[in-house]
Amino acid sequence: MALANAHYLKLKAGYLFPEIARRVRAFTEAHPDARVIRLGIGDVTRPLVPAVVEAFHRAVEEMARPETFRGYGPEQGYDFLIETIRERVYRPLGVALEPSEIFVSDGSKCDTANILDIFALENRVAICDPVYPVYNDTNVMAGRTGPADERGYYQGLVYLPCTEENGFVPDPPPEPVGLIYLCFPNNPTGAVATREQLRRWVDYALEHEAVILFDAAYEAFITEPGIPRSIYEIPGAVRCAIEFRSFSKTAGFTGVRCAFAVVPEALEARTPDGGRVSLNRLWHRRQSTKFNGVSYPVQRAAAAVYTDEGWAQVREVIAYYMENARIIREGLAAAGIACYGGVNAPYIWLRTPEGLSSWDFFDRLLEECHVVGTPGSGFGPSGEGYFRLSAFGDRENVEEAVDRIRTRWGACGT
Amino acid sequence: MALANAHYLKLKAGYLFPEIARRVRAFTEAHPDARVIRLGIGDVTRPLVPAVVEAFHRAVEEMARPETFRGYGPEQGYDFLIETIRERVYRPLGVALEPSEIFVSDGSKCDTANILDIFALENRVAICDPVYPVYNDTNVMAGRTGPADERGYYQGLVYLPCTEENGFVPDPPPEPVGLIYLCFPNNPTGAVATREQLRRWVDYALEHEAVILFDAAYEAFITEPGIPRSIYEIPGAVRCAIEFRSFSKTAGFTGVRCAFAVVPEALEARTPDGGRVSLNRLWHRRQSTKFNGVSYPVQRAAAAVYTDEGWAQVREVIAYYMENARIIREGLAAAGIACYGGVNAPYIWLRTPEGLSSWDFFDRLLEECHVVGTPGSGFGPSGEGYFRLSAFGDRENVEEAVDRIRTRWGACGT
Repeated sequence: MALANAHYLKLKAGYLFPEIARRVRAFTEAHPDARVIRLGIGDVTRPLVPAVVEAFHRAVEEMARPETFRGYGPEQGYDFLIETIRERVYRPLGVALEPSEIFVSDGSKCDTANILDIFALENRVAICDPVYPVYNDTNVMAGRTGPADERGYYQGLVYLPCTEENGFVPDPPPEPVGLIYLCFPNNPTGAVATREQLRRWVDYALEHEAVILFDAAYEAFITEPGIPRSIYEIPGAVRCAIEFRSFSKTAGFTGVRCAFAVVPEALEARTPDGGRVSLNRLWHRRQSTKFNGVSYPVQRAAAAVYTDEGWAQVREVIAYYMENARIIREGLAAAGIACYGGVNAPYIWLRTPEGLSSWDFFDRLLEECHVVGTPGSGFGPSGEGYFRLSAFGDRENVEEAVDRIRTRWGACGT
Repeated sequence: MALANAHYLKLKAGYLFPEIARRVRAFTEAHPDARVIRLGIGDVTRPLVPAVVEAFHRAVEEMARPETFRGYGPEQGYDFLIETIRERVYRPLGVALEPSEIFVSDGSKCDTANILDIFALENRVAICDPVYPVYNDTNVMAGRTGPADERGYYQGLVYLPCTEENGFVPDPPPEPVGLIYLCFPNNPTGAVATREQLRRWVDYALEHEAVILFDAAYEAFITEPGIPRSIYEIPGAVRCAIEFRSFSKTAGFTGVRCAFAVVPEALEARTPDGGRVSLNRLWHRRQSTKFNGVSYPVQRAAAAVYTDEGWAQVREVIAYYMENARIIREGLAAAGIACYGGVNAPYIWLRTPEGLSSWDFFDRLLEECHVVGTPGSGFGPSGEGYFRLSAFGDRENVEEAVDRIRTRWGACGT
């Protein structure tokens, strides 16, 4: 008799974004004439840059000719892309990586979810609150938790509240844990961690032999000098951290699919007999057995992001989004709505006006302004009373959305 | 303290294909002038067909313009591809599927590995022997087995020997199991199951409430009439089977990456409280949470496979490979080597001459003929004494490889 993985049944409601999609669909079906502006899901809107498009076409053409056709590639990614990442992403930060430490994949969502495969079920796991839901839900699905309590906290996970008081950057917990998810620049709050804050986390991880799962998907949006772009800028991090990077937001690849994970050779975890094993070796085995590499034309397109030409074009797109972020931040401030983020991240994290709950504000914003955002409570209990707006929209939509919000909410004060 | 998933440490040696790559690399480094012909890994060699290339380019171009750019797509795949699959793949077989039952992915390796996520650890699992190593290894990694014995059988799995005696199609086991992997046309043996044989499996699964994981990645290579192309051609299979399909071998997508799984709405598994839960719902949740969909241009390229033009072109490529298969089969027969498969599958399964072990024959074939194949024992203990050759090579390479084999081995008889 086939037995289902019943841990899935502990999950509350739907995954956040499908639930948003459901409500928006219901609204647009009821109001077919409403011009809905979507600043909810963190999805890019600008097209691929010309250097990327050209490399993409060229690689498709290679696949059309017998002498240049490529079948299976290396599961861990092609050398040309791995070299590009070493030289153009990490070397400028003073971080020297071996090719064997870089694993190209089809997305950071997959990587941050799949990485759990190489860790024992018994690990104690710490996650921020609010948090990108994938970190939470994949641990529930794997069976690392009990059921959720009435606030939405799952038994067995260690939640680290990110609040106005701590600037949305939590300190390490008093107790030891095995795995820690950190995401900076943060989704959803837009907060960044300073070098000193990250150093405290690395020191904690080294002391407790914990592994930090560091999600740096939004690194390209950092505008202020001195903010670390990689966890490996912190001494000792190669012995305690896995880093996740993505082309999704950096270069508009959400529909193209390319990312990579760094699992240092120096990184180890304990085995039940008290020994140690290389996590790089386990991840290599995991990817070799359960993954078949990223589409060849996609890897060529990704490598083009880091050519001089491609990078200049990509920087322009990022600047465009960050100007959107400025418009949203200043617009909200003008409407008397307190907000955070939007300086080193494409997300603005606002306090809901009139003491509305996150979902109530979602519904009001949709019904009254025809603007879609993301309820903060969807990212965890400490997100209640907050709301995320994304800067990825088209300029005119962003301006119009801000206008609508200012018109509707400007009168209310804080 | 971070604890590793120690189940990985039970895995024997490397994954089969990396081990082959290692030996071939060592040989070519020692013999840089040898012209090595690779009929080992089951990888296509013919370029993408023109209809696919054209659709691929067109979609890349869409990604270059703001008005047609696409970001995140549906995790389960775009409607246009799902509709194509329903209408062009399943309807001609008399199989009516709902769109919600089809899940587009980046590969059948991923799907057949990831599907385990939705099943409890406690399931008893049956796999064929020999078998595509992923089915075996992913169950070991998940912790569903004890260590391997000296033959290579892992404690806890139910192995179904596929032998000359049963025509490489095993009967259901006497005991009840929860999950059964079946792959027809088979990798590695090239065997196909008749309607009556599949009916016995479906009846067994319905009787025991088991789920069949049916890998039909090689369906397009069936040439004989009357052989089922989908498990859903068997009455009742929608209540007991998940089917995996791929564009990899069908249309030369091993480097492009697109596949799909069918999880019927009618399919259920047991929960610990004795209830039932929809596996379609669990897989939907799994894919929504841990996967972000397939590259949009790749999905457009995949859909073009099933246009009239694309399909005619793809059929030609398949015929080319199957002509290779005929040349290999007849060449081996002329050399007095017994072989199977190669009629409804791109694999030829041969009995090693002179009673050589599979790996000894691998080394001899590499050293003496400069031909790479795949040792049967790499697919499981019952593969010992067998060897797989793939028909995916270029014609002149296939002819030359067969010539070399005939020259070297032709004298030895059986």
